[in-house]
Amino acid sequence: MPVSNQYVYDLDRQHVFHSWSTQGNLNPLVIAGGRGCELWDYDGKHYLDFSSQLVNTNIGHQHPKVIEAIKAQADTLVTIAPATANLMRGEAAKRILAHAPEGFSKVFFTNAGADANENAIRMARLFTGRDKILSAYRSYHGSTGAAIVATGDPRRVPNEYARGHVHFFNPYLYRTEFHATNEEEECERALQHLHRVIECEGPGAIAAILLESIPGTAGILVPPKGYMEGVRALADQYGILLIFDEVMAGFGRTGKWLALDNFGAKPDLITFAKGVNSGYVPAGGVMISKPICDYFDTHFFPGGLTYSGHPLAMAAIVATLDAMAEERIVDNARQIGQEVLAPGLTKLAEKYPLIGEARGIGLFWALEFVSDTKAKTPLAGPIVAEMKSALIQRGLLTFTVENRLHVVPPCIVTAAQVGDALAILDEVIRVFSEKYAGR
Amino acid sequence: MPVSNQYVYDLDRQHVFHSWSTQGNLNPLVIAGGRGCELWDYDGKHYLDFSSQLVNTNIGHQHPKVIEAIKAQADTLVTIAPATANLMRGEAAKRILAHAPEGFSKVFFTNAGADANENAIRMARLFTGRDKILSAYRSYHGSTGAAIVATGDPRRVPNEYARGHVHFFNPYLYRTEFHATNEEEECERALQHLHRVIECEGPGAIAAILLESIPGTAGILVPPKGYMEGVRALADQYGILLIFDEVMAGFGRTGKWLALDNFGAKPDLITFAKGVNSGYVPAGGVMISKPICDYFDTHFFPGGLTYSGHPLAMAAIVATLDAMAEERIVDNARQIGQEVLAPGLTKLAEKYPLIGEARGIGLFWALEFVSDTKAKTPLAGPIVAEMKSALIQRGLLTFTVENRLHVVPPCIVTAAQVGDALAILDEVIRVFSEKYAGR
Ligand SMILES: Cc1ncc(COP(=O)(O)O)c(C=O)c1O
Ligand SMILES: Cc1ncc(COP(=O)(O)O)c(C=O)c1O
Repeated sequence: MPVSNQYVYDLDRQHVFHSWSTQGNLNPLVIAGGRGCELWDYDGKHYLDFSSQLVNTNIGHQHPKVIEAIKAQADTLVTIAPATANLMRGEAAKRILAHAPEGFSKVFFTNAGADANENAIRMARLFTGRDKILSAYRSYHGSTGAAIVATGDPRRVPNEYARGHVHFFNPYLYRTEFHATNEEEECERALQHLHRVIECEGPGAIAAILLESIPGTAGILVPPKGYMEGVRALADQYGILLIFDEVMAGFGRTGKWLALDNFGAKPDLITFAKGVNSGYVPAGGVMISKPICDYFDTHFFPGGLTYSGHPLAMAAIVATLDAMAEERIVDNARQIGQEVLAPGLTKLAEKYPLIGEARGIGLFWALEFVSDTKAKTPLAGPIVAEMKSALIQRGLLTFTVENRLHVVPPCIVTAAQVGDALAILDEVIRVFSEKYAGR
Repeated sequence: MPVSNQYVYDLDRQHVFHSWSTQGNLNPLVIAGGRGCELWDYDGKHYLDFSSQLVNTNIGHQHPKVIEAIKAQADTLVTIAPATANLMRGEAAKRILAHAPEGFSKVFFTNAGADANENAIRMARLFTGRDKILSAYRSYHGSTGAAIVATGDPRRVPNEYARGHVHFFNPYLYRTEFHATNEEEECERALQHLHRVIECEGPGAIAAILLESIPGTAGILVPPKGYMEGVRALADQYGILLIFDEVMAGFGRTGKWLALDNFGAKPDLITFAKGVNSGYVPAGGVMISKPICDYFDTHFFPGGLTYSGHPLAMAAIVATLDAMAEERIVDNARQIGQEVLAPGLTKLAEKYPLIGEARGIGLFWALEFVSDTKAKTPLAGPIVAEMKSALIQRGLLTFTVENRLHVVPPCIVTAAQVGDALAILDEVIRVFSEKYAGR
């Protein structure tokens, strides 16, 4: 029997349990293959992927150099225990550290983003001998037992079965928690708020502040100038470690190798996954600064996982980072972002009051929809879902969260592809504006 | 520069942070390649792998059918978001469920074993509306924030940052907690103990009992006849769910497809990883019984991960399970286990008082070393580590925990290879017996 969309759909609905959903309501899109920024189904319908799936395929789909490297490693040695020394694992760590700020000396590998944060938290607690972890309400750090409680968004609420996690408000001028009227004020007041939370929770009890360098799923909230530096100063003042979660923002997404390269603040631990090998093989990890490495030279580290430093995943990291460097993919992300995507989305926001704000950096952009511009009333979720469907029908995939579309194409995207996507967005937003704006 | 053992070793020591260790004390083995039950380094030194790495390469190293399937999937579509419908994901789920007990209808995929347990726990809490999870002291369920607290062994202690996890004593006649003198008594008393813990913790507060079908890292503790059935009866009596962790024991290891096939008790949720695709690509998951699937048809499931149902991992599952069936690999595990490994290890235990107990099932065996047979004083860890090194020098890899060697070859192992391994074990244990027995 030839494989069809229907066959794959039915097989899925019958046997596969899906993430973050009510299983009875699902209508999963069937995808058969892809290349670069395109995906297609078994009927030959093509999609322009401006979601990068879950914002992970920074290098695009099926990059030939990475596919070749995976196949070559499959022929050599597909898996080996973490306790061994493995060529690709060492090469991957070396390349990752080449993109870290100065003073980072080792990498601990995990399977993905959640366990990267788990292990960064574990290291911070042990290194400081302190218990509490501060993180932002507008954040997502993963879905395992402690990472989900470190998470600030509502996915945390049904999963609060860990202790010592305290949440604070991070800067977000469009919906300021601090009654601020400009970026400078938002920054200053957000830092003052964080300082008060630290004082109230007891500085000596706080192991680390965990922050997405740029909160992603929460809405692509580029921190105001000076905020990250201010957080670093607070951390230093109280001997608190700083963990930057670069899982979504890292490895090209913002037009720099790491999102933290956009700021003047250096963390003590950096977590990563997704873009490091575009998710071709599951992998994540923690970059560790020297003082923490030194500590664990003489202290036992009580954490681990079967597939830490999995050779196939490591080979994909090596090939991805090499190809990104050779093909100047990070530069492409910065240039296309600045010259084509940013102005295009800004123009849409000016044209349609349905767009409350267009914001972002590099190829990391969000359109936030509101049914009332002044009150900033979020456009209802079902309408945004309808909009997503209308985009899919016209062949454009985006990443949707609450009242937002995240426009996050692979970092190899061309100006022409961004042009096509902007045209589809314009067409669909026009229709929805006519129906829903100003209500 | 040609790659050498030294190059790979240095690269590792410089850049790679290792699991479960003090980084200053490491001496990782360099492995360059492998095939079947053999591994080798860059100098051409060969090893017989009776560890299956972390007890995951049940199908052996570099099985050609699985390698081909990984390469074919790499050429087709290496990664796609979990929200889509994907051919290999559906096919993998279908095949896994074919090995589940009757009444299991869907699979939720994860990256590995820890997050499989995380999600089973999450499902149990939501389905029952209850909070507590009971698990055994002698157990390992993974290293993320809740899974590690569900874990009973000492790796839990520095990681206790979750709540609602209660631990009980599981049966282990050799070191009985119940003053039992035979298996029947151990079983009865262990059930009575579990019953008392349930009563004391409040049956209405307990969501699930989480149990390895056969505790692995804890010492390969095959439960006495009737124990699992007794646990099922207690769970039924109080409306508590039963989760069997098959991460290490599943997919051929015990000479059956699942370890639970050795018992008459059926769980509500089954977690798996490792053997399902021999760890060729990181993958794990939860098999979900119909009532729980039905519940989530109309209730939101608040959990997920970027690489759930990763196509490359799924292709490896499909090929692994197909090859295991075609080549009757599970039968081989049972037969070689029963006819060669079990009698061989039993004979060693009879010969050397240094071996306090040899126990196991299928190709899942442990030798427990004692320096005093009567007092059952565990042989000191450093001596066991020395023994492990002596075995490695003679080309035999085993899995070492505390005072035990776990003898866990790939399920494709031949009688001749088991013979070779037994000879090396005999030789090394003789030397160590002369030095350490009876002290
Ligand atoms: C910032 C951030 N951290 C952590 C995670 C969790 O990663 P994973 O889904 O691979 O566990 C995500 C996933 O979207 C993320 O965006
Ligand atoms: C029974 C059991 N459950 C869970 C795990 C955790 O699996 P992973 O290391 O893939 O997270 C293990 C790992 O050894 C295990 O043996």
